Amino acid sequence: MITLASDFGSPYPAAMKGVLCARTDARLIDIAHDFPRQDVRAAAFWLREVLAYYPPAIHLAVVDPGVGTDRGAIVVRADDHAIVAPDNGLVRPVARRLADGRDLEAFVVDETALESVEPTGASPVVRSSRDGDDGPATNTFHGRDLFAPAAAAVHKTPIETLETLPFLEPTGAIVDLELPTATIDGEQAIGEVLVVDGFGNVITNVPGSFLESHDRIRANEIDLPVGKTFAAVAVGERLATVGSHGYVELDVNQGRGEEAFELTAGDRVVLERST
Amino acid sequence: MITLASDFGSPYPAAMKGVLCARTDARLIDIAHDFPRQDVRAAAFWLREVLAYYPPAIHLAVVDPGVGTDRGAIVVRADDHAIVAPDNGLVRPVARRLADGRDLEAFVVDETALESVEPTGASPVVRSSRDGDDGPATNTFHGRDLFAPAAAAVHKTPIETLETLPFLEPTGAIVDLELPTATIDGEQAIGEVLVVDGFGNVITNVPGSFLESHDRIRANEIDLPVGKTFAAVAVGERLATVGSHGYVELDVNQGRGEEAFELTAGDRVVLERST
Amino acid sequence: MITLASDFGSPYPAAMKGVLCARTDARLIDIAHDFPRQDVRAAAFWLREVLAYYPPAIHLAVVDPGVGTDRGAIVVRADDHAIVAPDNGLVRPVARRLADGRDLEAFVVDETALESVEPTGASPVVRSSRDGDDGPATNTFHGRDLFAPAAAAVHKTPIETLETLPFLEPTGAIVDLELPTATIDGEQAIGEVLVVDGFGNVITNVPGSFLESHDRIRANEIDLPVGKTFAAVAVGERLATVGSHGYVELDVNQGRGEEAFELTAGDRVVLERST
Repeated sequence: MITLASDFGSPYPAAMKGVLCARTDARLIDIAHDFPRQDVRAAAFWLREVLAYYPPAIHLAVVDPGVGTDRGAIVVRADDHAIVAPDNGLVRPVARRLADGRDLEAFVVDETALESVEPTGASPVVRSSRDGDDGPATNTFHGRDLFAPAAAAVHKTPIETLETLPFLEPTGAIVDLELPTATIDGEQAIGEVLVVDGFGNVITNVPGSFLESHDRIRANEIDLPVGKTFAAVAVGERLATVGSHGYVELDVNQGRGEEAFELTAGDRVVLERST
Repeated sequence: MITLASDFGSPYPAAMKGVLCARTDARLIDIAHDFPRQDVRAAAFWLREVLAYYPPAIHLAVVDPGVGTDRGAIVVRADDHAIVAPDNGLVRPVARRLADGRDLEAFVVDETALESVEPTGASPVVRSSRDGDDGPATNTFHGRDLFAPAAAAVHKTPIETLETLPFLEPTGAIVDLELPTATIDGEQAIGEVLVVDGFGNVITNVPGSFLESHDRIRANEIDLPVGKTFAAVAVGERLATVGSHGYVELDVNQGRGEEAFELTAGDRVVLERST
Repeated sequence: MITLASDFGSPYPAAMKGVLCARTDARLIDIAHDFPRQDVRAAAFWLREVLAYYPPAIHLAVVDPGVGTDRGAIVVRADDHAIVAPDNGLVRPVARRLADGRDLEAFVVDETALESVEPTGASPVVRSSRDGDDGPATNTFHGRDLFAPAAAAVHKTPIETLETLPFLEPTGAIVDLELPTATIDGEQAIGEVLVVDGFGNVITNVPGSFLESHDRIRANEIDLPVGKTFAAVAVGERLATVGSHGYVELDVNQGRGEEAFELTAGDRVVLERST
């Protein structure tokens, strides 16, 4: 199985799938292709939260503002999962989670050692490896020309023998990215908004346990009920919940929390419990 | 085969797919994940219209404004199909259609008897069944924590032996939902808009047969040609057609009917034929 | 394998997939269902660019402003690929590319000879073949009622024996569509915008080779750097690149080119190199 995640929108992911289908018969599962554009941190959050529900698989993830620069391409082995991605921190949080306490192993992709992607029929000027030129065929779509062929090759190799792949070299140094953590001091938690989801729910980085045994909370000076479910308050009313990722969320029942709280990703959130 | 339908947007359905892939090798087919948010009636319409084209399958459908309240979770057996959904009427119309005159059988899901969902790695506070706590791990994402594991278990069981599943109990009483029907009185039909589709076509509940042998019709006092196809009128012009669901639709050729007619779901529609 | 592409949005493609799943166990891959509505030229471009990365497959493509008129339905054999589509030029560019110099063979679909689509359960007035009426069940959704059953039947037939299918008749005349080509005269290229992609990148029809060995270019009188990658300029700055399709693109690093250049599909683009 190969999962695919990106900020590519449509129809670019279909070109990646073509490359994968041409090289493997792996089952393909789309995670999302509408991650906020070039927002590595938001995508890192979603990958960490969603891929933790998958059985061992190859995960192809591309949010890549540095495409075509000298940022590397990497494969990370985390327990029985392999993750193929740009080396920009994107997959570090999910890799740590999937490794679940075991060591991560990272490999750098040598682009020039990958079997190149050759579409059918003439294309105006896409560089062909037949020209003796090395590396991916284009500088702007490595999802198709570099990451997809790498993922296909990884899929065809038993996970415990990745080091035998000629285009992979072990590395001890890949870019790190830590999602911010909240600070809890007595009855106050100082955190921030990690992401706003498609429903408008404001997902903070304050652990849900902060709400335990409390019926009300103050969030950025707004007094709120704590609800187990959205339906704990009337339609259109604000509340705080423990969301499906285990963090405190600021929501509106059947409405949009980010509008009602005027909060967006990265904003500071101060929660206060009354004692 | 398991079909998936929801109003979850992205990337939440991918977490459901992870749970399904971890437990079965069922083929997964997305019906839609962009149903109008928390609009049970609109989703009930689309499920009834779309799933009727599928071979026997497990259908997982979640539009669930009452998530986390005491609304039940159900499995409905309709001929050789099984439908897993919240008990809020959502799947009653499609179940009736798939049963095609045979009896429906409904089961209530005992959440505490389901094998719980355990993501890999630590999550801040998601409740774990290891704590001895029963029921789904979260109160706000039953699609992942309750409906997906139920659908996976149903998929692994022959359809005729669903009653042997330890988490299912037969019930005679599930929530009903009837899509409204139009009233036809001579040359007048009084109905309403069931949904507006993504093209802007206004889908009413007046059977298409009402247009038979008529070249023109009045819809809410607007005189219109009746066309077999959108192209029966010039680009940008209004018309009435028999849509692909068999109902009268109010459309604009290559334009948006809901704007041209100023109609939205639930609005009253009066059609008059001249004799 | 059957690929699916359309401008249907959601949830209509799911009805097509139901018909396909009921008749074949083919692997289904979505190319895109959000092509610009009824824009045959834009979809023709994307199909040509994306399907070239696929192994031999059946490709079902529907962008069909003339649905229900007397425009024909066709199957085109291009090397080991078969394409099922309306006869409106949509698939001519991709068919030429997939044929890669070999002859194309085209067949007209005799709608009355196709096994009709029968959904489960009663539908208000959808025409049934049981009534002795021929042709697709509806006039407005041939994707479901005509193209999907044709694609399923083509999938079940070895590609080299398509002519044995009772509903196919060879034809020498299908509608042509040529994507416009740019004119290069010395240091000037006169072309046009083929499409704007979801990132806002303005994809012209000027071959990327026009930029070779140049560091700067004038595009519609705007002086621009030529970059290998978006990151060659600061965030928010404009540049010209050779895009992933091999054409000159007008882009903004992490921004929207179509807004910065005030250009949309079909607009004239004049590129000038300084010597």
